[in-house]
Amino acid sequence: MKTFAKTQMPIYIQISQDIRSQIVSGHYKQDEKIPTEDEIVVKYGVSRMTARNAVTELVNDGLVYRVQGKGAFVGNVKLKRSLNKITGFHQDMLEIGLHPRSKLLEFQKRPPTDKECQKLAIRKINRVFSIKRIRYIDDIPYGLQELVIPEYLVPDLASVDLEHQSFYSYLENIGKPIKKAEQHMEAVMNEQVANTLGISDSIPYFSFERISYLHDGNPVELLHSYFRGDKFSYTISLSSE
Amino acid sequence: MKTFAKTQMPIYIQISQDIRSQIVSGHYKQDEKIPTEDEIVVKYGVSRMTARNAVTELVNDGLVYRVQGKGAFVGNVKLKRSLNKITGFHQDMLEIGLHPRSKLLEFQKRPPTDKECQKLAIRKINRVFSIKRIRYIDDIPYGLQELVIPEYLVPDLASVDLEHQSFYSYLENIGKPIKKAEQHMEAVMNEQVANTLGISDSIPYFSFERISYLHDGNPVELLHSYFRGDKFSYTISLSSE
Repeated sequence: MKTFAKTQMPIYIQISQDIRSQIVSGHYKQDEKIPTEDEIVVKYGVSRMTARNAVTELVNDGLVYRVQGKGAFVGNVKLKRSLNKITGFHQDMLEIGLHPRSKLLEFQKRPPTDKECQKLAIRKINRVFSIKRIRYIDDIPYGLQELVIPEYLVPDLASVDLEHQSFYSYLENIGKPIKKAEQHMEAVMNEQVANTLGISDSIPYFSFERISYLHDGNPVELLHSYFRGDKFSYTISLSSE
Repeated sequence: MKTFAKTQMPIYIQISQDIRSQIVSGHYKQDEKIPTEDEIVVKYGVSRMTARNAVTELVNDGLVYRVQGKGAFVGNVKLKRSLNKITGFHQDMLEIGLHPRSKLLEFQKRPPTDKECQKLAIRKINRVFSIKRIRYIDDIPYGLQELVIPEYLVPDLASVDLEHQSFYSYLENIGKPIKKAEQHMEAVMNEQVANTLGISDSIPYFSFERISYLHDGNPVELLHSYFRGDKFSYTISLSSE
């Protein structure tokens, strides 16, 4: 029987996260059957109602679909991220109970390019931190990000563990939370990114360019991301006003 | 000398639209030089200031970039669409001075599928209009859309010219404007779509599913779109609140 550490989180949520993690890691594949409610009852030592709620949670997330009289099956396994809020990969993945991790490919302090001067509203005499990270869930590469940050805003960045910590949480901790962002999105193929991630070059990417601004209006990051199209989808709520 | 029909639109905007249309149609290719300000002065019979404003308009749109002392060149030719508003292809393209057009591949009235019943909040006894259109600018295919609409909301839809008219404008005209929408986005490859559009199957797509709602809360459309990743990019403004 599997037990969880004591948290504030309802037990059915914890079970759904456990199963989700096994779907994302590929333990359960698309259209494969997940454990039945009876099996969940035995495995986690919970009531039938709790088992049902755990499965319903996965159904509501669109990760799993029910077939009348047959059980629940893995659906489209793409992870849904919202475009209505400014969050980072690390936060988003933690929130749905997954285990994000990064590999730092590059961390350097250097002069900005002309484009970076323009986009980050800095001058050639300024310095920027340039950070390149592969983003993983468990041991699977999900994306590649290149982050450029003006040094004057985050002078102590070199002391931050960017393999296990969120850059956005760090900004909040030092009293510089992000206020708004402008994001540009493309759908692309990119052989070089595929090579860096060590995956097939036939996978399309969402390519993002995001410029984020502090409450005082200063741009704090220029972020280029490549996220795997076979692993992510994005949702957005639109209003006519 | 090229002249324009009299409209409310400033002349520099009309010139910028004329050049944009030539960029989009492929007359000017990426990194190719567009007409100089002197050439624009002669060709359109305008002042140097108007010529400069026309080019600046294209620069601000990100379609063209200036090189000091050399002139202006075609940049990334992807068309930018905003994700912050609910608009259709037809409207968006008209707004930037292009000429949208559609080819109707399918128009039928039929019973809804189970999924359509759920997403459009209708019952099996209802009927839906199912419309499949290739979207063009000039003669180039830009995307494929499948639109499913409950008949009871738009009983006269069969009389609408959906090859030359916007569905959203039609809804406004009959007093049923869209209030909000939920949109789901993926980055995908799709051989079947490529075949239908008659283009290479190595081009990635933005795949959208949009459900739009009227002011009374009723879902009025279930829209599946494939837009070419080599032709479009999307921008979005995000706020932390």
